[in-house]
Amino acid sequence: MLYKLIQTIDRFHPFSEAKAHCDIPCGIYDPITAQINALTVVRMMDLIAKITEGDPKDHADYHNSITRYISVKEEHAEKAKHEIRVIWGDFIKTAHTEKYPQLTELVHQIMQLGSKCRQTADRNQGLAFVDAINQFAEIFWAIKEVKTKKAKAPYAPGLEMVYPDL
Amino acid sequence: MLYKLIQTIDRFHPFSEAKAHCDIPCGIYDPITAQINALTVVRMMDLIAKITEGDPKDHADYHNSITRYISVKEEHAEKAKHEIRVIWGDFIKTAHTEKYPQLTELVHQIMQLGSKCRQTADRNQGLAFVDAINQFAEIFWAIKEVKTKKAKAPYAPGLEMVYPDL
Amino acid sequence: MLYKLIQTIDRFHPFSEAKAHCDIPCGIYDPITAQINALTVVRMMDLIAKITEGDPKDHADYHNSITRYISVKEEHAEKAKHEIRVIWGDFIKTAHTEKYPQLTELVHQIMQLGSKCRQTADRNQGLAFVDAINQFAEIFWAIKEVKTKKAKAPYAPGLEMVYPDL
Amino acid sequence: MLYKLIQTIDRFHPFSEAKAHCDIPCGIYDPITAQINALTVVRMMDLIAKITEGDPKDHADYHNSITRYISVKEEHAEKAKHEIRVIWGDFIKTAHTEKYPQLTELVHQIMQLGSKCRQTADRNQGLAFVDAINQFAEIFWAIKEVKTKKAKAPYAPGLEMVYPDL
Amino acid sequence: MLYKLIQTIDRFHPFSEAKAHCDIPCGIYDPITAQINALTVVRMMDLIAKITEGDPKDHADYHNSITRYISVKEEHAEKAKHEIRVIWGDFIKTAHTEKYPQLTELVHQIMQLGSKCRQTADRNQGLAFVDAINQFAEIFWAIKEVKTKKAKAPYAPGLEMVYPDL
Amino acid sequence: MLYKLIQTIDRFHPFSEAKAHCDIPCGIYDPITAQINALTVVRMMDLIAKITEGDPKDHADYHNSITRYISVKEEHAEKAKHEIRVIWGDFIKTAHTEKYPQLTELVHQIMQLGSKCRQTADRNQGLAFVDAINQFAEIFWAIKEVKTKKAKAPYAPGLEMVYPDL
Repeated sequence: MLYKLIQTIDRFHPFSEAKAHCDIPCGIYDPITAQINALTVVRMMDLIAKITEGDPKDHADYHNSITRYISVKEEHAEKAKHEIRVIWGDFIKTAHTEKYPQLTELVHQIMQLGSKCRQTADRNQGLAFVDAINQFAEIFWAIKEVKTKKAKAPYAPGLEMVYPDL
Repeated sequence: MLYKLIQTIDRFHPFSEAKAHCDIPCGIYDPITAQINALTVVRMMDLIAKITEGDPKDHADYHNSITRYISVKEEHAEKAKHEIRVIWGDFIKTAHTEKYPQLTELVHQIMQLGSKCRQTADRNQGLAFVDAINQFAEIFWAIKEVKTKKAKAPYAPGLEMVYPDL
Repeated sequence: MLYKLIQTIDRFHPFSEAKAHCDIPCGIYDPITAQINALTVVRMMDLIAKITEGDPKDHADYHNSITRYISVKEEHAEKAKHEIRVIWGDFIKTAHTEKYPQLTELVHQIMQLGSKCRQTADRNQGLAFVDAINQFAEIFWAIKEVKTKKAKAPYAPGLEMVYPDL
Repeated sequence: MLYKLIQTIDRFHPFSEAKAHCDIPCGIYDPITAQINALTVVRMMDLIAKITEGDPKDHADYHNSITRYISVKEEHAEKAKHEIRVIWGDFIKTAHTEKYPQLTELVHQIMQLGSKCRQTADRNQGLAFVDAINQFAEIFWAIKEVKTKKAKAPYAPGLEMVYPDL
Repeated sequence: MLYKLIQTIDRFHPFSEAKAHCDIPCGIYDPITAQINALTVVRMMDLIAKITEGDPKDHADYHNSITRYISVKEEHAEKAKHEIRVIWGDFIKTAHTEKYPQLTELVHQIMQLGSKCRQTADRNQGLAFVDAINQFAEIFWAIKEVKTKKAKAPYAPGLEMVYPDL
Repeated sequence: MLYKLIQTIDRFHPFSEAKAHCDIPCGIYDPITAQINALTVVRMMDLIAKITEGDPKDHADYHNSITRYISVKEEHAEKAKHEIRVIWGDFIKTAHTEKYPQLTELVHQIMQLGSKCRQTADRNQGLAFVDAINQFAEIFWAIKEVKTKKAKAPYAPGLEMVYPDL
């Protein structure tokens, strides 16, 4: 049945023409949204680490803050995954994955890291998430033939990020 | 840098243990939600085809119906893609993609077909979308060691679907 | 004023014709979505019970997990209620409630149980919620003249569910 | 099985105490949100009627406006239904439906009228929707023992509405 | 560049005509939605205060309730801000801000108070939020030339609110 | 009453300390999200202009495309407004509006232009929207003491944008 599907798809997805056409239905892709969301995840992990330091607490403000940090972390990890999924699903064609064979596995890792970032408050997971999305950004801009540079994000946690060199 | 990332991930993602643990953080996965959403996409394509038959129309009820069909089609194609992304990102581990090497490409095709189903009202795209998601369901249930069967969906458009044989 | 309304409605809702037409505006109804959401509620209650066992805890991972379980429980209880409301409001006609006089009270109970499942972490409320939605599924499929069977859900918490026998 | 459910529910839903406690878990209920949403539905129907008068049109601004009116109509009809469902499911207890036996049927009609308002651009459906929700508001405030009055809404379409007399 | 923008805007925003036209694109504005949302924020603060009284707690029901109160508080503070932003951005024109010069600063304060209400569980912030939104309502109805009155809200926390005197 | 409010606010909003603290509750602000959303609005206007050229059309694909363009335009104009509102409400303090007295009026114009971009398909409104948001970005980065540069966006419609010079 897979064979039949591939035939069916071939009829509708002229991949060899993909590059020329991909912007017409697709609009505007930019990994910066995923990158900012991933940075926010690390930021929330830092705030969670800070508030849970020291003795156990059990008052309203403590609960209010930690619940908000966790909830913002959830939301931004999810948004980062969603943004990468959109670029991967709508912009990346078979021609691109042939040129960058590590791309699909990288996307799969981003999804898994995003889930890890929701399941824990472990900063190392957050850093790996940011790192993986930066790698994705590097490949994305290379496909677009736009040069990239590295620079520290202009806000906490101030990690080194991949930016297009415009 | 990729190498460094894979090292980092390896430290946090003990894939060899994945199968045993995957349900604990993950909750409940079921491709039926994606399947119903994909069926709804075809249903909307059928309603769009029916309403646009014959002479051009330009009255309120016509606009009301076609706008709603398009909008429901959009939403359900997106939901189907989202559901597959969640199962792929949270449930599917490297061990699974090694056993089912076509799986990642199939997921990529589902994303592309879902976008095609949003961009057009072409029933063939809708059928290919349903077909690809049924294939995904087949692999998913095989991983879960649950037998599957094929049966017509109990509602229009009544396509043949893959169901777990419970 | 009620009398006037019923007259008004009668003019626009030819209930005697409802059965023949109900699928045309309505698309695809399936209680399985509500059933999966209700199962997820019980699953979250089980995870909450497990994590709160033993001594009080007050560290980041504990807060992270319990907040996520509560939040997933909230969301899925709400989705289950929403799905049932849609089927009840769009698919169920007066002719059906005449044939199944317990149906409206059952829907009201589902709404109340869904709220109870949000307000507490009490597994008995979750079980009653699943049970009530299974009863709704049984009536729904009977109206559609599709036979049903009972089988254990193929994922935790593995409760007995009502499925269409396709 | 229904009998068993009712037993189960009885154990957790002490309906005889419902009135005293209902505000504690429930927060703040007010049908005004549903009423404003229903008024908006009629307003959109009026705008749709106005823009589709006369000769067929096919330019960007026409499509832009009619698509937005339809989409706002959709959203507000849905919100109105949702608001009524919440009050009915969380605030209304069996004791209330015994005192106001028409209430459940009224809620069912509101759901059906809300769907009709989405499916058509027919102002009569919109008026019936507003009327039914006003009746619901009248009963709601009677249960709360707050007097009501009738007054024209202070914005188009300026229909007569039921307001609490504070 | 600002000068150029103002020129550009002037061409498209004939402010002198704003009052006559503002309802046509805008639909139905009513600050009551923001007011109810702000009241709900105070209500949640009261519930949080009550549940956190006394000794530290660490069981499932406590976490379930406090997480829900915080989350409802978040959502309603955000909705209140959103509603005010919509009225300010879509209904309020330069002519209005000239007549009510304190209006813009008041809107800015509402945004800041809304954020404070999310960041803390401090009832004084909630009261200031309700007060600021009531002031906004007073100006809004004055612009609409609708008289207002003050009355206690017919639900907890029963604060004095500004209502149109219809 | 305004006076009382300002007193109340003063007690809780120590504006003189705002700059030092503003990042701690606030997380990560970046106008790029609003800028990308505004660019997308212009892109959709271009696609709408292209598809409505020439003779009237009335087939499924035409309706499908124009409805999607309008709906994407709606959503992105709204998101851009929301992002600016968040930065203005959470990051911008009275000290900033004193230093940049045009800021509040600029934010008000962004809200109005965003609504114009939803109400029409007029590219000039889209350009004015992008321009106003670029001005906001310029002031935002100046407050953060980050230098900016101008460069063409690396995707259609390729307008000149304000970027931080990292």
